[in-house]
Amino acid sequence: MKPRLITGKSKEAENLVKYVKPIIGTQKMGHTFPGATVPFGAVQLSPDTDTLSYEINGKYNGDVYKYCAGYKYEDKTIVGFSHTHFSGTGHSDLGDFLVMPTQGALQMNPGTADNPKSGFRSAFSHENEVVEAGYYKVKLDDDKIMAEMTATKRVGVHQYTFPKSDQSHIILDLMAGMYNYDDKTVWTYVRVVNDTLVTGYRQTNGWARTRTVYFAMSFSKPFKSYGQKNFEKAQVYRGFWRKFDQTKNHPEIAGKKIRMYFDFDTEASEKIGLKFALSPVSQENALENMRTEVPGWDFDKVKQQAQSDWEKELSKIKISASEDDKVNFYTAMYHAFINPTNYSDVNGQYKGLDQGVHKADGFTNYTTFSLWDTYRSLHPFFNIMQPSKNNDMVRSMMAHYQQNSLKMLPIWSHYANENWCMSGYHSVSVVADAIIKGVYNGDAEAALAACVETANHRSYEGIGEYIDKGYISAEKSGTSVSNTLEYAYDDWCIAQIAKKLGKQSIYDEFIKRSGNWVNNFDKSIGFMRPKLADGTFKKEFDALSTHGQGFIEGNTWNYSFFVPHDPTGMIAAMGGAKKVASRLDSLFSMHLPDEFFADTEDITREGIIGGYVHGNEPAHHVVYLYNWIGQPWKTQEKVRMILKMQYKSTPDGLGGNDDCGQMSAWYMFSSLGFYPVSPGSDEYSLGSPSVKSAVLSLENGKTFTVEAVNQSDKNVYVSKVLLNGKTVTGHTIKHSDIVNGGKLSFYMRNKR
Amino acid sequence: MKPRLITGKSKEAENLVKYVKPIIGTQKMGHTFPGATVPFGAVQLSPDTDTLSYEINGKYNGDVYKYCAGYKYEDKTIVGFSHTHFSGTGHSDLGDFLVMPTQGALQMNPGTADNPKSGFRSAFSHENEVVEAGYYKVKLDDDKIMAEMTATKRVGVHQYTFPKSDQSHIILDLMAGMYNYDDKTVWTYVRVVNDTLVTGYRQTNGWARTRTVYFAMSFSKPFKSYGQKNFEKAQVYRGFWRKFDQTKNHPEIAGKKIRMYFDFDTEASEKIGLKFALSPVSQENALENMRTEVPGWDFDKVKQQAQSDWEKELSKIKISASEDDKVNFYTAMYHAFINPTNYSDVNGQYKGLDQGVHKADGFTNYTTFSLWDTYRSLHPFFNIMQPSKNNDMVRSMMAHYQQNSLKMLPIWSHYANENWCMSGYHSVSVVADAIIKGVYNGDAEAALAACVETANHRSYEGIGEYIDKGYISAEKSGTSVSNTLEYAYDDWCIAQIAKKLGKQSIYDEFIKRSGNWVNNFDKSIGFMRPKLADGTFKKEFDALSTHGQGFIEGNTWNYSFFVPHDPTGMIAAMGGAKKVASRLDSLFSMHLPDEFFADTEDITREGIIGGYVHGNEPAHHVVYLYNWIGQPWKTQEKVRMILKMQYKSTPDGLGGNDDCGQMSAWYMFSSLGFYPVSPGSDEYSLGSPSVKSAVLSLENGKTFTVEAVNQSDKNVYVSKVLLNGKTVTGHTIKHSDIVNGGKLSFYMRNKR
Repeated sequence: MKPRLITGKSKEAENLVKYVKPIIGTQKMGHTFPGATVPFGAVQLSPDTDTLSYEINGKYNGDVYKYCAGYKYEDKTIVGFSHTHFSGTGHSDLGDFLVMPTQGALQMNPGTADNPKSGFRSAFSHENEVVEAGYYKVKLDDDKIMAEMTATKRVGVHQYTFPKSDQSHIILDLMAGMYNYDDKTVWTYVRVVNDTLVTGYRQTNGWARTRTVYFAMSFSKPFKSYGQKNFEKAQVYRGFWRKFDQTKNHPEIAGKKIRMYFDFDTEASEKIGLKFALSPVSQENALENMRTEVPGWDFDKVKQQAQSDWEKELSKIKISASEDDKVNFYTAMYHAFINPTNYSDVNGQYKGLDQGVHKADGFTNYTTFSLWDTYRSLHPFFNIMQPSKNNDMVRSMMAHYQQNSLKMLPIWSHYANENWCMSGYHSVSVVADAIIKGVYNGDAEAALAACVETANHRSYEGIGEYIDKGYISAEKSGTSVSNTLEYAYDDWCIAQIAKKLGKQSIYDEFIKRSGNWVNNFDKSIGFMRPKLADGTFKKEFDALSTHGQGFIEGNTWNYSFFVPHDPTGMIAAMGGAKKVASRLDSLFSMHLPDEFFADTEDITREGIIGGYVHGNEPAHHVVYLYNWIGQPWKTQEKVRMILKMQYKSTPDGLGGNDDCGQMSAWYMFSSLGFYPVSPGSDEYSLGSPSVKSAVLSLENGKTFTVEAVNQSDKNVYVSKVLLNGKTVTGHTIKHSDIVNGGKLSFYMRNKR
Repeated sequence: MKPRLITGKSKEAENLVKYVKPIIGTQKMGHTFPGATVPFGAVQLSPDTDTLSYEINGKYNGDVYKYCAGYKYEDKTIVGFSHTHFSGTGHSDLGDFLVMPTQGALQMNPGTADNPKSGFRSAFSHENEVVEAGYYKVKLDDDKIMAEMTATKRVGVHQYTFPKSDQSHIILDLMAGMYNYDDKTVWTYVRVVNDTLVTGYRQTNGWARTRTVYFAMSFSKPFKSYGQKNFEKAQVYRGFWRKFDQTKNHPEIAGKKIRMYFDFDTEASEKIGLKFALSPVSQENALENMRTEVPGWDFDKVKQQAQSDWEKELSKIKISASEDDKVNFYTAMYHAFINPTNYSDVNGQYKGLDQGVHKADGFTNYTTFSLWDTYRSLHPFFNIMQPSKNNDMVRSMMAHYQQNSLKMLPIWSHYANENWCMSGYHSVSVVADAIIKGVYNGDAEAALAACVETANHRSYEGIGEYIDKGYISAEKSGTSVSNTLEYAYDDWCIAQIAKKLGKQSIYDEFIKRSGNWVNNFDKSIGFMRPKLADGTFKKEFDALSTHGQGFIEGNTWNYSFFVPHDPTGMIAAMGGAKKVASRLDSLFSMHLPDEFFADTEDITREGIIGGYVHGNEPAHHVVYLYNWIGQPWKTQEKVRMILKMQYKSTPDGLGGNDDCGQMSAWYMFSSLGFYPVSPGSDEYSLGSPSVKSAVLSLENGKTFTVEAVNQSDKNVYVSKVLLNGKTVTGHTIKHSDIVNGGKLSFYMRNKR
């Protein structure tokens, strides 16, 4: 290798971050946030254009679903900047510690979107917004304040440029947050330690039921005064109210609904910095996190480090593609590397599911596991590009299991809570994929035991009946079919671990269970269908509808293909390749009437192609099934169609929730030309790459190169595939083919 | 010394516990609790006959003041047994984790006192009650269950004897507690770890604003099933409600208003044991506390240890006196050794005022500092009989100061909270007394600095004006006079520390401030009187009234004598010994009309002698002032009168709140024949002992003996006093006279 100049390297290093457009997905259904975060960082410091905790005239402003990420591109005002945000979820929470700079008369209410000057919120315009990986900047029009923010793993760093004023303020809103529940904030405690340092915590009862976030906040300049207002309707009387004026310059603050303010004199264009560190454990840890990660007051240095962190991650894959495709690809990579998030302090401590303090020994603890989504291709993507982090994620899941009084692996877990969202027990898929692919370095037998215990938790969502009958009866559950199908796939994952570890009896048990999908398959109509407890199929059934039909986020047109671990068996059951081909073609070409679209959650009209719902996850593998029926060209053309139609480099460019990176991981896999149809297997199904080339730099030091010879928008068909110069027969490559390093060459043409 | 048989010693060792009658003070105003605790223990496991957190038909049952200690002798029903209780306070809090055994149909509401069978509470009768130091037993009539309880420092141990039943239950009420606030319980979290172990915590917003108590609860026998009911009016919807039945056998429980139940089959007379450990820090620490302090299931052994712990403390003073006086004396000693309470785990960790976890290095951390009461003679009593514990208490107060964002020593502090109750900054008296008497082994200069900073906290309750003007103006405060008087005394205490440490300028400053009492003395009427900001005395003034007259818990008849550090100066100001004698005589003989009694807080009619209010604290030193005006015989006769009238060995035997042991400490000092009129000095003023003799076994190994020659109820006058055989001239002895060991002989007679 030729040595390169450091300047050249530095310049090149800035090239990939520039393709990241965090604004993508902030409009309509993407539910991404535009603010500053570092890869897998605990802090996501981002503007909120509304939150659900703002009560205006007795009613909540906005709707809970719309504001999952706090920011809607369509909005014209910003309420403030809060420190925690989900990326792409369909359920809301977080939004902790909203900070807003103002000047002029102190306003302690947020005001309304229609009349932002009635409160501390401010009008803004996208023209005055800079949205980059690790950096966000906006001009707040009402008070003429420039707001900038960046972050480290555990610290949000703000920089506000004020006009000249003897009434400059920084508001700290401890009530605000995403969720549709009046009393989300259970308790708040704040200490003003000195005139630049404030610490405290906030406990919330939101989607996470028992959740406490500790903070330490430091100002670059001493405030001249400060105070608080308690918005509780009734407060318990305390004798000491006659001893102190607690509303002003009183350093000990506690209550349920508190907003604070800090006053400054500012010169023209004076910058005030703010460091805001989080901890799941204690104020002390938050302070240690701050002092370790951001010891000084050099905003630009933190910003550069944040962007350098992103550059380091992004540069693990260097693609050659159109500028627009690069934007989509690197923004997808950015979105894929936001969640799961770091959930341990610099000293390794974290709050466990048992609400006790634990130390992550030898690993980094992660939270925010949107597993129904992310097992499909986000964690498989990590197994290639982030294996050591995915190993830590599995270890985090094992810690969750050990701390769980129900002794189950996570279902949908965030911030030391299990919210039990969605169906299946897909942790076992993530565990299996990491074990099969040699990524998990923990105790595999213990992991298998955890998977088995999870899968045998009879009282959980029909598992008992599923074990006894091989399916969940329609009487018992409104999502009986999707549950049965997903359990069957998960059981196959468990069988794969058992096979690898030589546990024959566990293998036998679970490989048998993995065939349970057949119990919901109604041969008479060729679709998956709810079955009654008596063994007969439910009579009333509508194949286009989702709700009430036994499914979740997908009708039977999509879910009937959900046998990712046995497409061959599924095709046989459906009557053979020809019938399946026709069904798949119909899926992509049919028209879904509005009445049925209405109950397809989390997506826009654009999130659907025919009846194929890409904006939700259950059909994410479906386009690759053409490979199993001898029509790989349809996989190829449709993958390219989906990439074009479902991912656009605009604020409304995502047709559905990004779902903590699952939509983005699909994009990256598919644009690289392969996809993990059945995580837990070591095979990837081939599609049609959209990149011209891609070089994957692996953690083991090897590189894996994808090239698409004769690539163009029209050349979507693959004439042949060579792996290290040898023709690939069939439509799969193995995980080892990738991690051993090498070159995968697709030869593209414009016809099948 | 003659060696004694061990059996003899053991038998004798049981003799003192039998004089302790914890039932004393449980009727009317004493506000003591009858349940089980060990000396200074963190757990006070005691029956509650009502609590304020029981809402019946939208109204709270009972009144907050009445149920400060949870139990009223007058009541006919017991709601359950909770683990934390104040002893003798006039303000309520605590009452954590109420446990109640029942059998028959499960009842999750407490029911009413009128109809206990309508809920889980039960009728009981005092005939079926055994109330001892460290042991409480009662028969619960409704369900025919015998309840027994004992304790270690951090663990409450229950033993319930059930009848034969397949519907035996133990209720754990996580909502109950003392306080007058609907939403006292901020959050509750519970994990059912296995079929004998439950852990969790409860956060409350009561008198202590931000307070969390963690627990671990273990059953001697596995429960067959369990469940919970959430009594919140509205709960946030959670998707997983459709996945689990959370009301039964679901091990992860959280919410604001929760009651749990545990079901058992019981044979006739089957005993079920329950260990309930507390921690201020974590569930893990609670479990460690339990496993360390009560490893097994031998209830009787724990009981014996608890009573042996009490015996050890009680036997530090062996008195010869009438049986009734022994009951009063040892019960006073028992009440004096309940508070302050242990507030650190077996591993030394505790929650600090900053809500962070700290480790008490080299000391035991204590909480529950009712300092306005206890500085007067409880802490001075500790300086003789419990010096190492009092040293730890001062260290705990210093830790409080260091963790306090307001940088003040405690005022009235409990459970990592400052509740700012009552006037003055009397920590400085406790600190000074411990330093002057050589008890405090910490950094005395740092302690002095803390006292000075506390006394100079200008924004606290008139201190700024007090510093500037020498008094607090009547316009600014409703308790302006008592505040000024108490600050002046406290300032004198600070001066004493400064003098001892050779800090001349601090001495000068504070000895000057200690003369400020004179600023509220109106020579024209000879009484302390509110002064206006302009320097003139307030015109409207009623010497018999308390409220609105500038005082708290005492009118000017009592408070005018509050110059404990300078009786001589006070007497001069009042016009000399003769005038003062007449005033003191009037105080003890006057009649206080009902209208003025009504605003004297916390006492019964019996708590008053003439106009002298013994049931409150401000005049506790007053009877000793006769010594300063040449009429010591009046001190002698009146001390004996107060001892007789104010302390009786009956449930209603205390005329006022015991106030965390202050009333009891007064009893012990006075019955031994001396009293600390001005803590912070090393002198005790002599009175008239009521014991025949007393042997004080000191920590330094020495003994101090008091004997009253010719003692009888009529021989209340002292003809002479010998210290180690030498006549005591004057009316004082020094602290060193006591701690150096020796003998103090009072020669008694029936006339002056």
